[in-house]
Amino acid sequence: MNRLSSFRNSFAANGIDGALIGSASNRRYLSGFSGSAGWLVISPSRACLAVDFRYVEQARQQSPGFEILHIKGDVGAWLPGLVTGMDIGRLGVESDHLSLTTYQSVCRAAKASVVEFQVIPIKSPAEPLRAVKDADELALVTRACAMADSAIAHVVPSIEAGMSEKQLAWQIESRIRQEGSEPLPFEIIVASGPNSAMPHAIPTDKVIAEGEPIIIDMGARCGGYCCDMTRTYIIGRGDERFNSVYNTVLGAQASAITLIREGMSAGAADGLVRGMIDKAGYGDCFGHGLGHGIGLDAHEGPRLGPTSDDILVEDMVFTIEPGVYLPGWGGVRIEDTVTMAGGKVLALTGAGKASRLNGGKTL
Amino acid sequence: MNRLSSFRNSFAANGIDGALIGSASNRRYLSGFSGSAGWLVISPSRACLAVDFRYVEQARQQSPGFEILHIKGDVGAWLPGLVTGMDIGRLGVESDHLSLTTYQSVCRAAKASVVEFQVIPIKSPAEPLRAVKDADELALVTRACAMADSAIAHVVPSIEAGMSEKQLAWQIESRIRQEGSEPLPFEIIVASGPNSAMPHAIPTDKVIAEGEPIIIDMGARCGGYCCDMTRTYIIGRGDERFNSVYNTVLGAQASAITLIREGMSAGAADGLVRGMIDKAGYGDCFGHGLGHGIGLDAHEGPRLGPTSDDILVEDMVFTIEPGVYLPGWGGVRIEDTVTMAGGKVLALTGAGKASRLNGGKTL
Repeated sequence: MNRLSSFRNSFAANGIDGALIGSASNRRYLSGFSGSAGWLVISPSRACLAVDFRYVEQARQQSPGFEILHIKGDVGAWLPGLVTGMDIGRLGVESDHLSLTTYQSVCRAAKASVVEFQVIPIKSPAEPLRAVKDADELALVTRACAMADSAIAHVVPSIEAGMSEKQLAWQIESRIRQEGSEPLPFEIIVASGPNSAMPHAIPTDKVIAEGEPIIIDMGARCGGYCCDMTRTYIIGRGDERFNSVYNTVLGAQASAITLIREGMSAGAADGLVRGMIDKAGYGDCFGHGLGHGIGLDAHEGPRLGPTSDDILVEDMVFTIEPGVYLPGWGGVRIEDTVTMAGGKVLALTGAGKASRLNGGKTL
Repeated sequence: MNRLSSFRNSFAANGIDGALIGSASNRRYLSGFSGSAGWLVISPSRACLAVDFRYVEQARQQSPGFEILHIKGDVGAWLPGLVTGMDIGRLGVESDHLSLTTYQSVCRAAKASVVEFQVIPIKSPAEPLRAVKDADELALVTRACAMADSAIAHVVPSIEAGMSEKQLAWQIESRIRQEGSEPLPFEIIVASGPNSAMPHAIPTDKVIAEGEPIIIDMGARCGGYCCDMTRTYIIGRGDERFNSVYNTVLGAQASAITLIREGMSAGAADGLVRGMIDKAGYGDCFGHGLGHGIGLDAHEGPRLGPTSDDILVEDMVFTIEPGVYLPGWGGVRIEDTVTMAGGKVLALTGAGKASRLNGGKTL
């Protein structure tokens, strides 16, 4: 119940005496319930998990610390009675996750309630908590990282010219699953040649050729926790451009791991890497942020981008993933999932970063 | 541009002269763009797709009929200029999909705009359009259904006592992917014995035993379009209870396919099946709706449940999936993806419905 206590400690600062949680990952973090639908209602003294028929059994099994309520229909049908029974006068709702329709339903229900209550939109207090991992969470992320490492080490020797992006993506995915991963946190990216200039490319039937960049961006999931890793390869020798871009990105990523320290702002961390890429002449070609927090969601806090004020602290888990993209030619991205440990960055993914493949062997 | 014309035809009834679309499936349906982030802004004469750096290339490739805008930052930074430039005075926003935070940003941007515009929350006009499939969409769903049928036919003979739910789920998933499916629309359910009493169970390490129900609920995806199919099996002979429950569900599902007709309300269709299950004495054990529309989303309109007013019309695609669940013992669910064709229900999934497996052979 440690998470729940920390969550409740945020009530005063938010001016609330209860909260409604509907977002899947915040719900799971606080209650352990992994179903796709349900609501938490939390007061200083009670914690309820309201689910429909499909999830009553599962909720009982996964959330023994919660009162399980079997609900029917819209939030307006059951929320007022529950909030009143729990003696909540000011109910916090998650403004980043509640749809406008549901927010309006909650407000109508609050007004129509026999004992009226106030609805207070807030940033969910669960999210700053989730950004800093506890030992159980770190263990799960670490296992997910080991699965990704093992899968890529297994598949890389079989990469050869003539395979399609889709074929390679499926080889990687099936290997990650055989390593024990739950369904993957996101669709694997295998992007070759010009496709690799698209940071979020989807694998196509395009055949992989010698001498072009091949970006592989993959994740694994263990106990709900995700990892995220990207490597860029080339079959045969890269031309001058490839080598220049690859070395720029590799150097920037390695420097980031060495130089980012506890207490640094995520914006400063991003700026540090952006400065290096800029100096190498590719400043306009690194269009996304340096990275993102990762955990129950593949993307969560902290946010590592130019305008981020998030401070990087001990036990956060995030990605470091600089990239350089040249439309028409291709791109290079190198990414690790890392944690802040003992004030420094510790990489949790560790697959080799040699880019060159040749006849199936990394040179 | 047919979809876009139909979409624009809804403007007058909604009192708008432009719309902002941020939900992934509505965006894809209208523009073809399959990325995970981006906004459509549509006026009577212009159609814009606004994406960040990661998706500029992909948007150009997938959405040739749209003006592609490269945006940076929050919706407040770029929306006012665009809306003003497009001469939109009343901008519809999707109230079911917009978070409260984003809605508030849009409203602030509208007020601060040099040329002020109104923000009108509406039910997205894309969704009633999506519920009725065109020929291209029907072809994709049909292919997804064929993949699911082929995969289950391949895997069923290998089901035996002693396998874990997770092992079986992975066998099915890897086979569906080998059949050509894109990443699956939802996590496969393999639930045996008491686990099968949870309609949305996640596969566990529980070993499958003889004489207990085994529910398999699986989907495939082709060109973005999903299918959804459930079968229930048993190894060896079922006891009296299994046979009674199985025959009830099988009869109800078959009757639904025969009796549901074009023009019927989805609520009436649900009631028809619910009545049959009630008559067999299991009325309290069928706690979910009869089915749901399916397409780009695994769950979309129409909604087939007791309170649904949706009318079932030609070329809709939806599921018919009655189930009976007895906590502590288990459950039975049988589901097909179907379409309304020539006024009647046509099942698009067609895997056999014999429940009994024995030493790997369906009896």
